Amino acid sequence: MLQLENEIAQKPKHCIGLFGYGTVGKAVYDVIQKTPGLQACIQKIGIKDTGKKRNIQDDIFTTDAFEILNNSCINIIVELIDDADVAYKIVKAALLQGKAVVTANKKMIAAHFNELCQLQKQTGTPLLYEGACCASIPIIRNLEEYYDTDLLLKIRGIINGSTNFILSRMEKEGLEFTEALLQAQQLGFAENNPALDIDGHDAANKLSILLAHAFGCVIKPETILYSGISKINGEDLRCASQRKQKIKLIAHAQKLKNGKLATYVLPQFITKEDELAGVHDEFNGLITESHYADRHFFKGKGAGALPTAAAVLSDIAALRYGYKYEYKKIDAQKNIKLSNDYYLKVYVSADVFSKINCQAFEYIEEYQNQYGYGAVTGVIHAEKLLEDTWWKQSGVSLIACPEAITQEADYKKISRRSLELAGIT
Amino acid sequence: MLQLENEIAQKPKHCIGLFGYGTVGKAVYDVIQKTPGLQACIQKIGIKDTGKKRNIQDDIFTTDAFEILNNSCINIIVELIDDADVAYKIVKAALLQGKAVVTANKKMIAAHFNELCQLQKQTGTPLLYEGACCASIPIIRNLEEYYDTDLLLKIRGIINGSTNFILSRMEKEGLEFTEALLQAQQLGFAENNPALDIDGHDAANKLSILLAHAFGCVIKPETILYSGISKINGEDLRCASQRKQKIKLIAHAQKLKNGKLATYVLPQFITKEDELAGVHDEFNGLITESHYADRHFFKGKGAGALPTAAAVLSDIAALRYGYKYEYKKIDAQKNIKLSNDYYLKVYVSADVFSKINCQAFEYIEEYQNQYGYGAVTGVIHAEKLLEDTWWKQSGVSLIACPEAITQEADYKKISRRSLELAGIT
Repeated sequence: MLQLENEIAQKPKHCIGLFGYGTVGKAVYDVIQKTPGLQACIQKIGIKDTGKKRNIQDDIFTTDAFEILNNSCINIIVELIDDADVAYKIVKAALLQGKAVVTANKKMIAAHFNELCQLQKQTGTPLLYEGACCASIPIIRNLEEYYDTDLLLKIRGIINGSTNFILSRMEKEGLEFTEALLQAQQLGFAENNPALDIDGHDAANKLSILLAHAFGCVIKPETILYSGISKINGEDLRCASQRKQKIKLIAHAQKLKNGKLATYVLPQFITKEDELAGVHDEFNGLITESHYADRHFFKGKGAGALPTAAAVLSDIAALRYGYKYEYKKIDAQKNIKLSNDYYLKVYVSADVFSKINCQAFEYIEEYQNQYGYGAVTGVIHAEKLLEDTWWKQSGVSLIACPEAITQEADYKKISRRSLELAGIT
Repeated sequence: MLQLENEIAQKPKHCIGLFGYGTVGKAVYDVIQKTPGLQACIQKIGIKDTGKKRNIQDDIFTTDAFEILNNSCINIIVELIDDADVAYKIVKAALLQGKAVVTANKKMIAAHFNELCQLQKQTGTPLLYEGACCASIPIIRNLEEYYDTDLLLKIRGIINGSTNFILSRMEKEGLEFTEALLQAQQLGFAENNPALDIDGHDAANKLSILLAHAFGCVIKPETILYSGISKINGEDLRCASQRKQKIKLIAHAQKLKNGKLATYVLPQFITKEDELAGVHDEFNGLITESHYADRHFFKGKGAGALPTAAAVLSDIAALRYGYKYEYKKIDAQKNIKLSNDYYLKVYVSADVFSKINCQAFEYIEEYQNQYGYGAVTGVIHAEKLLEDTWWKQSGVSLIACPEAITQEADYKKISRRSLELAGIT
């Protein structure tokens, strides 16, 4: 009897079915082996292709997802595959089977946020995804638990590690964009499809998840005004250096006076005093601003297999004490909406001046037009950026200024005299 | 019937008895009035002296603690008084009555940690104290929930806002220590008894609380090697400036190779690359280092009534969903112990060279002895600092070097030749 009790006591509490054995999957496997205190074991690993040579015993692998999903011993599914559509099917099936799920798949979560919330409510089964935003930084749990929605005013940060790595290399070593991207890929900081990172889509996915946990605002990532860093060039970096600033890909959300949220993901000039200027390489950083608590700054590794594995591990540990996201803010803040009715101060440069649509600006503060090359610093309505595509064409680079957002329509009151004086209307 | 249901629905879920109406107590009162989403109301406020003029209705105040503790309507006690002994009695009585408690009293918690854990276990009633460490930064909950003890290697940070404010003013404005202290007191950043802050005792209290939540190590704060900043002078700051470094009061804990913990609270030279160098004024900052997750940095306001009130508020909000500290690491890590068997590299300056006990050093790297004024940079065993008092006398200032701790006894192997050469043995 005593022996039986001992066996029960020693049986790992968490029996894990792991989907995916890429860089993060491998790291999670290794980390779990080295963390006996977690009392978790990996029972089965679901993969696409059994042909590859792998470093652990073959019989742990299966290509049959149902061998894992229907295994009654397995009580946690850790989903770490690339394909967001397949991932969604796995996560849905797991929740419906009553198996808790840990994932780091931001694309899948952002695309199916409402359905995944509903599924959790319906089944009472937790889905945790701390690794989906800012990898190792425990940001989702802090936003979910610590900040009252009424009091939170703003979140802004660097939430994509590979673009930050690329910009850091370009700035410090004078690398071209493509060289720096290659380095990021070689070090495992970029997604398999790097376009997701460098066009800002990955940051928009993450921002949409953060918005839900910070402000209770659930939106599709596509509705966010976003762009990436692929058009940042040496000239832009020299311009930043002259201003004693840096260029970072910034995700930003702040409450406007009307209670709505203004959001964007854009490259932005950052002053040296800004904490985000000290976030280098694959690190991420997030600043919250709230009434009473004032500013908080969180910094940690935002890309790489081990930091993501650390977040996955902390989610598995949290399942031990029955932790689940309660999505309290979503229920409490049913009416919080995005707004594109705000103005942005931006710097736009182009290989040919005429590519810049000066007419779109409310106000132009400075411009250059030399030998075809051109640059404009001015104020533009967010709606115009969302609707227009001129600033997304090849050779045009748009960078938000440090003090980017203004809620006031003051700029409208300024006549277009500045444009006229400049002879460009 | 419907009306009754409405009344029940509208009745605040949290009925609070507040002890203390000083700067933090007032701030908590105000913040709760302005946060309707919290569904909390303050029923009674316990004070020492009814004679003072206060800005709210008189009948909310009482000098009879039992009027609050025995009030069955009140389900949460928020304890914010200065006197740690009285605070302990209130908290103990409240927990025994089954009332959840929120406090920010680090001295009381540090002094009675074991008893308070026991009381919570015995009564099943939660005691939360996020505001006790680093004011507004949600550091206790992150240490408690996010980091596996096996994986956490080190925590270090600036955890006392008033000393950081004083050092910042001394550095930036060239103020003398006493002038800077006066400014801190005027702005409400210093404790009523500033000695607790400036002699490092407050930081030692906080570090002892952090050690329990980070490493499961419960110790009395007096056992920590600590000192404060009252002897930091203009000469020390000039020395820091020459090295392109800053002086900060640093709380430090790291695992040694033998699994024990080395800890100290000491003024320390900080390089410009260190995140803590960017923590100014009343801000606090904490860095964690762990396997896999690597480095995390948290920064936020560490002193002031509103930031502390924000943390108290977040604890009240956490009680809504039944949050309590589980002290899992304490149960799991029964044997983790402090060790003073390590070496520290320090810089000691003195108005009279002979006040420096050169014999105490294992190794002296540099020394100055001019016109009586003296300074020594060298390596010393932690035990010697704990046992000796020469470095605590007036006119002597000890500052840890950036790379302070070494676990190796390599220094022992080095002969005392350096001392002999210097002619000071």
